[in-house]
Amino acid sequence: MMIVMKEGATDEEVAAVVSKIERAGARAHRSQGARVTVIGAIGDVEQDANVESFGLEGQPGVDRVVPILKPYKLASAQITHGERTVLDIGGRKIGGDSFALIAGPCTVESREQTLQTANTVREAGATLLRGGAYKPRTSPYAFQGLGQEGLRLLAEAKAETGLPIVTELMDMRDMDAVLEVADVVQIGARNMQNYPLLAEVGRSGCPALLKRGLSSTLDELLMAAEYILKEGNPDVMLCERGIRTFETAYRFTLDLMAVPVLKELSHLPVIVDPSHAAGRRDLVLPLSLAAAAAGADGIIVEVHPNPDEAICDGPQALVADEFEDFARAVEQAAALAGKELAGTEPVVA
Amino acid sequence: MMIVMKEGATDEEVAAVVSKIERAGARAHRSQGARVTVIGAIGDVEQDANVESFGLEGQPGVDRVVPILKPYKLASAQITHGERTVLDIGGRKIGGDSFALIAGPCTVESREQTLQTANTVREAGATLLRGGAYKPRTSPYAFQGLGQEGLRLLAEAKAETGLPIVTELMDMRDMDAVLEVADVVQIGARNMQNYPLLAEVGRSGCPALLKRGLSSTLDELLMAAEYILKEGNPDVMLCERGIRTFETAYRFTLDLMAVPVLKELSHLPVIVDPSHAAGRRDLVLPLSLAAAAAGADGIIVEVHPNPDEAICDGPQALVADEFEDFARAVEQAAALAGKELAGTEPVVA
Amino acid sequence: MMIVMKEGATDEEVAAVVSKIERAGARAHRSQGARVTVIGAIGDVEQDANVESFGLEGQPGVDRVVPILKPYKLASAQITHGERTVLDIGGRKIGGDSFALIAGPCTVESREQTLQTANTVREAGATLLRGGAYKPRTSPYAFQGLGQEGLRLLAEAKAETGLPIVTELMDMRDMDAVLEVADVVQIGARNMQNYPLLAEVGRSGCPALLKRGLSSTLDELLMAAEYILKEGNPDVMLCERGIRTFETAYRFTLDLMAVPVLKELSHLPVIVDPSHAAGRRDLVLPLSLAAAAAGADGIIVEVHPNPDEAICDGPQALVADEFEDFARAVEQAAALAGKELAGTEPVVA
Amino acid sequence: MMIVMKEGATDEEVAAVVSKIERAGARAHRSQGARVTVIGAIGDVEQDANVESFGLEGQPGVDRVVPILKPYKLASAQITHGERTVLDIGGRKIGGDSFALIAGPCTVESREQTLQTANTVREAGATLLRGGAYKPRTSPYAFQGLGQEGLRLLAEAKAETGLPIVTELMDMRDMDAVLEVADVVQIGARNMQNYPLLAEVGRSGCPALLKRGLSSTLDELLMAAEYILKEGNPDVMLCERGIRTFETAYRFTLDLMAVPVLKELSHLPVIVDPSHAAGRRDLVLPLSLAAAAAGADGIIVEVHPNPDEAICDGPQALVADEFEDFARAVEQAAALAGKELAGTEPVVA
Repeated sequence: MMIVMKEGATDEEVAAVVSKIERAGARAHRSQGARVTVIGAIGDVEQDANVESFGLEGQPGVDRVVPILKPYKLASAQITHGERTVLDIGGRKIGGDSFALIAGPCTVESREQTLQTANTVREAGATLLRGGAYKPRTSPYAFQGLGQEGLRLLAEAKAETGLPIVTELMDMRDMDAVLEVADVVQIGARNMQNYPLLAEVGRSGCPALLKRGLSSTLDELLMAAEYILKEGNPDVMLCERGIRTFETAYRFTLDLMAVPVLKELSHLPVIVDPSHAAGRRDLVLPLSLAAAAAGADGIIVEVHPNPDEAICDGPQALVADEFEDFARAVEQAAALAGKELAGTEPVVA
Repeated sequence: MMIVMKEGATDEEVAAVVSKIERAGARAHRSQGARVTVIGAIGDVEQDANVESFGLEGQPGVDRVVPILKPYKLASAQITHGERTVLDIGGRKIGGDSFALIAGPCTVESREQTLQTANTVREAGATLLRGGAYKPRTSPYAFQGLGQEGLRLLAEAKAETGLPIVTELMDMRDMDAVLEVADVVQIGARNMQNYPLLAEVGRSGCPALLKRGLSSTLDELLMAAEYILKEGNPDVMLCERGIRTFETAYRFTLDLMAVPVLKELSHLPVIVDPSHAAGRRDLVLPLSLAAAAAGADGIIVEVHPNPDEAICDGPQALVADEFEDFARAVEQAAALAGKELAGTEPVVA
Repeated sequence: MMIVMKEGATDEEVAAVVSKIERAGARAHRSQGARVTVIGAIGDVEQDANVESFGLEGQPGVDRVVPILKPYKLASAQITHGERTVLDIGGRKIGGDSFALIAGPCTVESREQTLQTANTVREAGATLLRGGAYKPRTSPYAFQGLGQEGLRLLAEAKAETGLPIVTELMDMRDMDAVLEVADVVQIGARNMQNYPLLAEVGRSGCPALLKRGLSSTLDELLMAAEYILKEGNPDVMLCERGIRTFETAYRFTLDLMAVPVLKELSHLPVIVDPSHAAGRRDLVLPLSLAAAAAGADGIIVEVHPNPDEAICDGPQALVADEFEDFARAVEQAAALAGKELAGTEPVVA
Repeated sequence: MMIVMKEGATDEEVAAVVSKIERAGARAHRSQGARVTVIGAIGDVEQDANVESFGLEGQPGVDRVVPILKPYKLASAQITHGERTVLDIGGRKIGGDSFALIAGPCTVESREQTLQTANTVREAGATLLRGGAYKPRTSPYAFQGLGQEGLRLLAEAKAETGLPIVTELMDMRDMDAVLEVADVVQIGARNMQNYPLLAEVGRSGCPALLKRGLSSTLDELLMAAEYILKEGNPDVMLCERGIRTFETAYRFTLDLMAVPVLKELSHLPVIVDPSHAAGRRDLVLPLSLAAAAAGADGIIVEVHPNPDEAICDGPQALVADEFEDFARAVEQAAALAGKELAGTEPVVA
């Protein structure tokens, strides 16, 4: 890391910083500019990644501490020397040249709704089936999901369609039940920094779809992924789902710049969820096309046979009858970025 | 709630909305303006609070749905008819005319550091002792707190000083251990929407200090409080600790407007944490004075006998030797807003 | 507009609001819910658009005032009954089924650079040539553009290539000089709410490319357009160029949701500038593809024969030699959204 | 500045950066860490302040360029060696130990309103009289101010009360008329980056009150001040007036951290405008107390004899009858921060 001293920092202040760096076992390298002194602290990677441990910020004479290395390692593009991670979920590829179309109901509501949606998305070539059994709701008075019964219905849909399942885990105590059904465990945006949950998912070894927090930087998202990877679970995909900004014309602002930038910073696949940012069905197609054209490794969207009757997030659900057309348009946009739909040719696991 | 139709919405579209409202058991009330139709849905409070359950957003012809009632109830100022909640924590009052000075180490590091800090803040008239045994860290490689040993040290500090303890709970599995020591359980900003954790804290009955998420609206903070209150735990204090904005000159932007506005919306006490937003000791005093002058019910700050040696967040810790002066300045600012320091006259529990 | 009263508002407070509405010449329409009263103010469009003129916000007993109609009129989609505006710039169409590829140097630096770039983008089928003679710079010490000499070079490039010119106007005093050369006057993001400048551009009748302010809502962008339209100038295109958010991984966050939403709210063409948000060449292609796939009516990008030598914003300039490939990729993405490149078949004006 | 190379940058890439630095006349200083190379570019101050001119961002192998020196000079705290600038406006001090209470109507509406308000604030000890003759309005249909007639009324108020006048300039063409009346020219938030206007105000020599843009960083605010200072006008005060964030509970989020931080970065006085952020009268007092307690050099607030009848921003105007009490409370809060009201003892100019 580099320590930028204030203009007018005294020799004693500079010496104190140097001494603190050396006590921490790193090497200090002083560089004197026209007006300010900059001190490089050269140590091993762990030290640099952990700027705070030096306790230099706020020291007398210190203007700021500039980290040089990225704070994440296992999630970084460097660790694979530029090779991209491709996940294999029940025979479907996610990442690399494969584009994952992940679709299904926001919430599992009933047997009929679940199976009908599963079949629809299966026929249109979806890669994975998504569906929520446990729903994080802003209001304690809102419907919180069918829970175990929802998981059972997802298991049935999987048996019927062969589609691997993505479903959200919110409460560690539901881990075993969720793992029985899920091929991919989803960590929602609100839990992106729920570290005990991340570590448990890491230990479970189950592939994870990690959503970016509403106001999390890309670095923080990658640090959250690091919590999972560090436990020995290499199967993490990142998901941009809209961030919070000043704009009130939409629920969240979908940040598609995150797609190419995350792919530069990390080897992990990057998925986009256009439904939650928009909150409106009519925006899902243009945003899905944009995500695919920007190079995303997949999208995750909500589909309902009859969105008007949906218990939750109906307005943003694609209509099942129109999903085939949607899938074909997205497929073309993915092709622009050199990707093929992962699920178009069904694979026997 | 009010449903604003689009310009040019057809009679059929209006009728469909009316019918949907009526099927949900509410009364529809149509009002025809020069250009658009607005439909009021008048039902019971639960219905209005739960706008989504009507499934009207995104319906054909609907421009937007405007909720009229606040989505929280137990946290609302209305429920107590304007009376303010005053918490009693081991004989100390929080809320009303009492100003709570909550202070202590960021992280419990050692017996000496903890006891020394506890004694210092006790002598300066602190209301509660804060101290972290479990620390949520962005990096999985950073120090995560002393855990159980940290709790033991806090218990010792409490025995020695009589100060009630505020400490953070991150993992439900630590609940019992934390409850043995904590007089107030802190829910950190990153866990503000960890609903299972909120519900458990609600069920525990232990007073809670709930920090606002980095990008949570005041409504969302109050909804998170509602998760605790709903389980029968009335003892919640809200804590503003800085929000995320575009400004990079500081870690977070302390939002002091939240103080008077939360106090208008809710009967719950409002505490301010100036340390984490600033990340720098020299900003803690002016921000603490500002918080007190704005009418906060208390502040929560970090103190260390030797911040340079702190394991975590040293740069923002107040120096123990200067804490007495700090406390007296804050006391004067609180007096401006008509409040007295809760801890100045030690109370026998 | 609707006036939502507070819970517990008195009859007198309700009556005062009603009377204020009626004194303003509108009709008041009272609707009594389970807990709160809502009053509709039904008047002519001007009144509704100008909520503030009623002076109801902050009145005793008033919780909030909810505008019903959009505050802009001439910019609204309703005014053309859903028909989209197509600008004709020297025979090139912008809007509708035409996709405008606007390209050229960030800053006009020299005759050679300008003519070379103009020829390159002309050959690749660009619709318009962009180039800055006057540059708004954060620092007063930075290069501020060639001024009149820059305009002269743009005129020469136009004569040589036939490409219409887009160039920025910052200072009203340069209006005449700029109008002599410009086919489209650009209003930069920093001047989006420079109302005297907007009004003058409106009066000039010259087509305008209006960039969204760094933190302007879509409504504010449309209100800024309204300032131009109101002076009788119907030729305005809107430009999304990145907004300011908490994310520090890029200069600005490109908001591609603005594309479909602006096209729903307004009849005006919507252009995207991916270069300034990214600040990096390698992001310009994926973001341009995404913009086109999302349905934008065009993009505006920077091109330089030798970006390393560029005086300004070199890192984000596309390399002239690679522009042909870039243009073809964007053309395909625009085709996905049903659009054809406006400039591919040169048009005789 | 420091150039951080990417991991794996080649020797050629490092050499190219070094050569570019040297061609620009600066000295390159290479420092090799465990994983990455960092290159310091050591030159004169102008070079460092103008990072962009090196054209290093986006160069092959470059990860990022970290500026070391602040980009502003005349506005920086260093230039006065820590001494604070104190403005003298018609005998009133602004800055240092003086606290400026700037008050008056949002908009000059009528002779009676203006004179009555001026007398009220004069009697309560205000330092300056504020009042708008030209109003920047989001809507072109809203009242735009009385213009020249407004200026005339302000001149009359000044003659009657002796209070120096602060009034906004939006359009350079009104400069002469405004300068005839104004003791301080206000640059509104929307014009903070209207560089031609800033430069003209700089050349005029008239003291300026410069409001922070809605989403401007502190660095950008100081750069805007630099535009004025650079023209030889040393009399600039900075004004925090609320920034744009995700929070919708208030119009803008007042950023009081800006007060101590601006005072650390710059020698210029820092004023706070609590009225526009709040948009509500009841928040103006707590926010004013907070601003004063945080160490602001003054506040600027709106007062109206009868806010219900105000043409513009009535809900946020303090009631004239209550202004005396308001002034006394603010005076006490300023005293906490060691400041005295500048206008309490009227000064003969």
